[in-house]
Amino acid sequence: MQIAIVGLGKMGGNMVKRLLGGGHQVVAWDRDPAVVERVVKDGATGAASLADLVSKLAAPRAVWVMVPAGDPTEGTIHELSTLLSPDDIVIDGGNSNFKDSVRRARELGARGIRFLDAGTSGGVWGLKEGFCLMVGGDRSAYDHVLPALTTLAPKDGLDYFGPAGAGHYVKMVHNGIEYAMMQAYAEGFELLETCEYELDLQKVTRVWNHGSVVRSWLCELAERVFSQDPALGDLEGYVSDSGEGRWTVDEGVRLGVPLPTIALSVFVRFASRAKNAFGLRVLAALRNEFGGHAVKKAGGDAT
Amino acid sequence: MQIAIVGLGKMGGNMVKRLLGGGHQVVAWDRDPAVVERVVKDGATGAASLADLVSKLAAPRAVWVMVPAGDPTEGTIHELSTLLSPDDIVIDGGNSNFKDSVRRARELGARGIRFLDAGTSGGVWGLKEGFCLMVGGDRSAYDHVLPALTTLAPKDGLDYFGPAGAGHYVKMVHNGIEYAMMQAYAEGFELLETCEYELDLQKVTRVWNHGSVVRSWLCELAERVFSQDPALGDLEGYVSDSGEGRWTVDEGVRLGVPLPTIALSVFVRFASRAKNAFGLRVLAALRNEFGGHAVKKAGGDAT
Repeated sequence: MQIAIVGLGKMGGNMVKRLLGGGHQVVAWDRDPAVVERVVKDGATGAASLADLVSKLAAPRAVWVMVPAGDPTEGTIHELSTLLSPDDIVIDGGNSNFKDSVRRARELGARGIRFLDAGTSGGVWGLKEGFCLMVGGDRSAYDHVLPALTTLAPKDGLDYFGPAGAGHYVKMVHNGIEYAMMQAYAEGFELLETCEYELDLQKVTRVWNHGSVVRSWLCELAERVFSQDPALGDLEGYVSDSGEGRWTVDEGVRLGVPLPTIALSVFVRFASRAKNAFGLRVLAALRNEFGGHAVKKAGGDAT
Repeated sequence: MQIAIVGLGKMGGNMVKRLLGGGHQVVAWDRDPAVVERVVKDGATGAASLADLVSKLAAPRAVWVMVPAGDPTEGTIHELSTLLSPDDIVIDGGNSNFKDSVRRARELGARGIRFLDAGTSGGVWGLKEGFCLMVGGDRSAYDHVLPALTTLAPKDGLDYFGPAGAGHYVKMVHNGIEYAMMQAYAEGFELLETCEYELDLQKVTRVWNHGSVVRSWLCELAERVFSQDPALGDLEGYVSDSGEGRWTVDEGVRLGVPLPTIALSVFVRFASRAKNAFGLRVLAALRNEFGGHAVKKAGGDAT
């Protein structure tokens, strides 16, 4: 089928390749013309602007938006809403908040444009393994783009989950679980690294990945990581987050669902970014105040 | 090679089958003679007692102990220490505390008997998939029983990690990570089950198991579970533990390593067993005391 991809970063670029490999006709645009040129060499039709991209599509047009969540997605979808026609389809493949997807479906729907929110997992490995796709939104639009989705996803790694937002909701919770799973491994490896046994963590992960209960793709990535740098000496223990973990916790609070380890995993990431956190200084100060316990002065030793 | 298996429960029984399938000669004993008869039909040599089992082995004897951790393992290994000869080998495949393994290696070593602690993962699936084996203890003993270990484990699912206790230490941390991973999924699925979207959790797990970041063996088990009973209506939310999670937390405390989500996952299991916990009643009482907030009387509605 014919499909457009807007945003040719790591994810979008690999999607173009996978779609072309599946025999689809891809019209591609990115605000960086150099990136467009690259996918044209792969066999895509390049566009000079969003309007140009829309003009190169046959109705009903299907446009997959793969730009960063937040303002870039908002701006792109808003512009598309002024360029597309009734029955056309916008697919948001980014990590948008499901509430934004509900709103965008409504706004686009007011113009007759169909919307799909496609939670997309698989990272840079998606080109080879396929992108796991969790889709919500207009069912007829899903059925229309199914040939392209089937090419993008691995076998069985694709399904429709319900009305607008359902796809991004399932993806949000996926990421919340991912945070806590990563934290579980992180804690376990720190203990193994600290204990008196001199353990080879590459060996540990290799063995765990074959027949153990904790085998997983994340554990395979850990094996890869430890094979390259077992001490992780080149890294700083500073961990970012891109929102889905926070939103998962927000949903736990809204719905009264306890998510203790997911919440804690998000907070551990926040703590990782604080240099000499105020909360820790409060603890040190209080401990000193009631018991005269040693404190460590800024820049000095424990006194 | 020739190897003895003591304890023919779910794990031990499947190990006998795997070893026989690999062409090894197995001498087997269990305190239940009916179970011994069953493995004899499979091709094992049955024993009438531990002494009988030892008498049927050629030196150096290798005895794999697969009985529950704690007293059963302690009693079995103690009795073996009086029956075996120098250079013989005792392998503890149970979930023993690594400190007990260090002690047992010392006690057996005083009689010249070699000891291996073999952390074993894979549960009832081990027969088909192989048992992931994390081994510590006497290196020469490991090399001696390697043919049997290689049959028991899947390819690459076996290694030697260091002196006595190292195997059970790696297995302990494996289980600690397992607790927190399971808790991560549990929280995510509870949120998906509670939210306004009517999500099919079997579909969610099936899609997640193909190309997503959270794909794992535990997620495959979840898919299996949801395919059988999506609402888990037949289950009570009461979760046991068998010690390794607690020991992992003990080690975090001893070594000053923060294990927040692993500790929390252990505590969530404790909380799951409390009916009308005292701590929760304290919370309700204090809340009522300072603010006149509604409390729910035992057996009644919120007032």
